[in-house]
Amino acid sequence: MGNRRNNRKVWFFAVSSILLGITFCLSSCTTSKENNSNSLVIKEQGSFMVGGTKTTETDTFDLDSALKPQGQTFHGDHAYAFYQIPEEAHKLPLVFLHGAGQSKKTWETTPDGREGFQNIFLRRKFSVYLLDQPRRGDAGKSSVEVTIKPTADEQFWFTQFRLGNYPYYFPNVQFPKDTTSLEQFFRQMTPNTGSFDAGVISDAVSALFNKIGDGVLVTHSQGGGPGWMTAIKNDKVKAIVAYEPYSVFMFPEGELPQPINSTGLFGALSGVEIPLADFEKLTRMPIVIYYGDNIAKEPTKVWNMDHWRSGLQMARLWAAAINKHGGDASVVHLPELGIKGNTHFPFSDLNNVEVADALSKWLKDKGLDK
Amino acid sequence: MGNRRNNRKVWFFAVSSILLGITFCLSSCTTSKENNSNSLVIKEQGSFMVGGTKTTETDTFDLDSALKPQGQTFHGDHAYAFYQIPEEAHKLPLVFLHGAGQSKKTWETTPDGREGFQNIFLRRKFSVYLLDQPRRGDAGKSSVEVTIKPTADEQFWFTQFRLGNYPYYFPNVQFPKDTTSLEQFFRQMTPNTGSFDAGVISDAVSALFNKIGDGVLVTHSQGGGPGWMTAIKNDKVKAIVAYEPYSVFMFPEGELPQPINSTGLFGALSGVEIPLADFEKLTRMPIVIYYGDNIAKEPTKVWNMDHWRSGLQMARLWAAAINKHGGDASVVHLPELGIKGNTHFPFSDLNNVEVADALSKWLKDKGLDK
Repeated sequence: MGNRRNNRKVWFFAVSSILLGITFCLSSCTTSKENNSNSLVIKEQGSFMVGGTKTTETDTFDLDSALKPQGQTFHGDHAYAFYQIPEEAHKLPLVFLHGAGQSKKTWETTPDGREGFQNIFLRRKFSVYLLDQPRRGDAGKSSVEVTIKPTADEQFWFTQFRLGNYPYYFPNVQFPKDTTSLEQFFRQMTPNTGSFDAGVISDAVSALFNKIGDGVLVTHSQGGGPGWMTAIKNDKVKAIVAYEPYSVFMFPEGELPQPINSTGLFGALSGVEIPLADFEKLTRMPIVIYYGDNIAKEPTKVWNMDHWRSGLQMARLWAAAINKHGGDASVVHLPELGIKGNTHFPFSDLNNVEVADALSKWLKDKGLDK
Repeated sequence: MGNRRNNRKVWFFAVSSILLGITFCLSSCTTSKENNSNSLVIKEQGSFMVGGTKTTETDTFDLDSALKPQGQTFHGDHAYAFYQIPEEAHKLPLVFLHGAGQSKKTWETTPDGREGFQNIFLRRKFSVYLLDQPRRGDAGKSSVEVTIKPTADEQFWFTQFRLGNYPYYFPNVQFPKDTTSLEQFFRQMTPNTGSFDAGVISDAVSALFNKIGDGVLVTHSQGGGPGWMTAIKNDKVKAIVAYEPYSVFMFPEGELPQPINSTGLFGALSGVEIPLADFEKLTRMPIVIYYGDNIAKEPTKVWNMDHWRSGLQMARLWAAAINKHGGDASVVHLPELGIKGNTHFPFSDLNNVEVADALSKWLKDKGLDK
């Protein structure tokens, strides 16, 4: 009897002590995790140049006349990519291509110092590739000559990018109204170091996909055109997300819609005809296009609101053509989701987490976050 | 007796089980640590523009003529900074300023795909700030006009930067000899979007130190001059590390050494006179200057080796002047430490970990890694 009682004691002590030990372990493990909860855990990060051209001057290089071009080479028209791969990353990375006058900075810290899509989607376990397109930013070597003049145009951009109608902000705008944020916004523009060439850009972005494999291409504004062209050139583009694309919507020969008149400062918006075989390549992948707020529903003389009215309208015609040919394209006007006040830069606006949530849901719905 | 035996058993089981549990805990903790040992744990990362100028055109901005400059502003001549702060970071961050024709890319992934000083010093718990100087890279908005012509000059740079004497690599060179690495090296150059101006650059870098506080400034090549000027302008520069500075060595009025003749393609090297009061500001902080290998000891007609001979010799005269005035400057010719074969880019050469170790030791010796 005494022995059995003691044996029971033995097992009680033994089992409870093991549980005590395990509990101690688990608590210590979770504690260390909680301490790091705000930190980014980056499995790998780095940068590289990709794509581009090489030219060689005639004659032979002479080491003693090394300042003469003879026989020397020039590499240019490549893209620059900075990438970060988080631990336990989803299979498909997000490749970010900026818009006109912008660089990869556009996806980084917002003008008022919050996290941009770079950090937001790293935290959501996506690998991110941020590009400077050929002839922009750190990818500045251009095969064509350019003259860059300092041009006072920031009040134009304030208006064109729908912060408001300078000097007035739109009442519901999701842009911070302090001068420091506006200054950051103006300073983050950076000039072309060679003429904009969608063919050159899409060649370099296609070369990037050849290097990294399948991925999702996220474009902004002027990046939209090179984005479609990249997807036509390279079937490793498995989906396209386009924020406020403008000016280059491609339709099959014979299916071009009428130009859309606009009081926007660039006038009427026309589509572009491409061969049906190329157009059909855009029906291979899911595509979503997002537009922000303060875009006119009917023609108006408020030129910025009317400029983007024509863009949104052309985007809807384009998506209808894609879907008619068996594709999967949708146009989301964010206010229709109840996401109000966005400028031309929804991904860095004050509500960019809400904007990111909409994208996360779309990526999940399309099975792109495996 | 039986009871005492059983009690001993009880305690044996209990204690051994606790040890078992704790062992299980520790092993699982260290395992998870080991799994992450190659990952970077970033407490905070982001980017911003800093410093710069603002100009405003005359007359009043007219919203209906928004493509005309009247009344519009232009922000330019700022620097771009991308920063990463690791967990448990040392007190002083490292601020990296690139050299001629380079951008912040120079400190990132090496031409052959290894980790550069950005990652190496993040792993060593230093916060890092990588700059694009004003009128370069993502900080492209310049207050002065520029024309950029594609110029075939890469065989010159191959030689000037001491990879070798084109097409021959130096026998002991620490640069990878495959064509892909050389192509990455050529493509990572990027042009000025406005004339190089050491005053403009040092103003922006000084503004960065005003924003972030005390730090260590790490410069390369042409960045050396703006680096000294930043330290003269801002006492938050607590130390300077200069890799292969050239062309701007500042001496007190009346203490200028004779120019140093050189067969280098830029000819003789002269110092620059500055007021004694400014020079003395450079005696407030520890300074180390590093030069790589394949630099001539005696005058030679091999122009790249002779160009850097004059730089190294002037650096030694300069350090002697700093120390004579009570400062703490040292010039390290890496081969004298047994670190051989380095090019003009020791921080990205094949042995850049060894080069980083030398810097880590210096930072520790000077108490800069607290």
